[in-house]
Amino acid sequence: MQYWEDFEVGSETIHGEHEITADEIVRFAKEFDPQPFHVDPDIEGPFGGLIASGWHTASLYMGMFVRNVLLDSASMGSPGVEELRWLVPVRPGDVLTGRSRVVDAWPSERDPGRGTIIGEHELVNQRGEIVMRMRARGFIARRPA
Amino acid sequence: MQYWEDFEVGSETIHGEHEITADEIVRFAKEFDPQPFHVDPDIEGPFGGLIASGWHTASLYMGMFVRNVLLDSASMGSPGVEELRWLVPVRPGDVLTGRSRVVDAWPSERDPGRGTIIGEHELVNQRGEIVMRMRARGFIARRPA
Repeated sequence: MQYWEDFEVGSETIHGEHEITADEIVRFAKEFDPQPFHVDPDIEGPFGGLIASGWHTASLYMGMFVRNVLLDSASMGSPGVEELRWLVPVRPGDVLTGRSRVVDAWPSERDPGRGTIIGEHELVNQRGEIVMRMRARGFIARRPA
Repeated sequence: MQYWEDFEVGSETIHGEHEITADEIVRFAKEFDPQPFHVDPDIEGPFGGLIASGWHTASLYMGMFVRNVLLDSASMGSPGVEELRWLVPVRPGDVLTGRSRVVDAWPSERDPGRGTIIGEHELVNQRGEIVMRMRARGFIARRPA
């Protein structure tokens, strides 16, 4: 189990790989983001084809990060994200790799049992392009004395 | 069809209502955010029960906003979000209402066919608590001459 003390500023972690399919893109978007360029596999549209909803991309990243890092840590949730950028369209067949870096960390002033981590998170496609970047806060329990 | 010119700074829109269920919370989280407090309906945990993944909450909001606004507008996607805050836990049975306000808008300098809108978006629960707030950018086509 990893506690707040175990997240060293500067440390980087590579998470799983995920190949995204047209079916997945359409299924997510029909429920959560039914814009034509996310639900119509035959579209031309402003992106020259079907692309994944940015919320789908962010959620896929979260799945990788949770399975690779948070499930083995004393995570206490997140108050939010500082900045989230969708930089390059994600298309069917893209193979996405997640990576994260601890960029800042401090103990809570209010709660001695908790600390905050600032992570910079990226998803990279098979051509090495960063398709999504975000900077997010996480609360992690401190190691019990 | 709404174009960039139709989004007036200061205008506010109320979107649909959504009652969230435990089943939905667990189904989303098993795929995208399998932390114990998002997938175990019987958990106590740091939040005193099951709560929705913040990515689920954001995606639900997007569904409302797309169906109520973007599907009738000349949306050209979004480069990202400035700030996203999860302020209050979302629990099974909560009834969420979305609302958005145009806070800034400018025409593209590079592309005469496009403008940017900055929207402030909120999800409010049945007690009037703002559970999520974000400030996001959207690209919208300009009205054809």
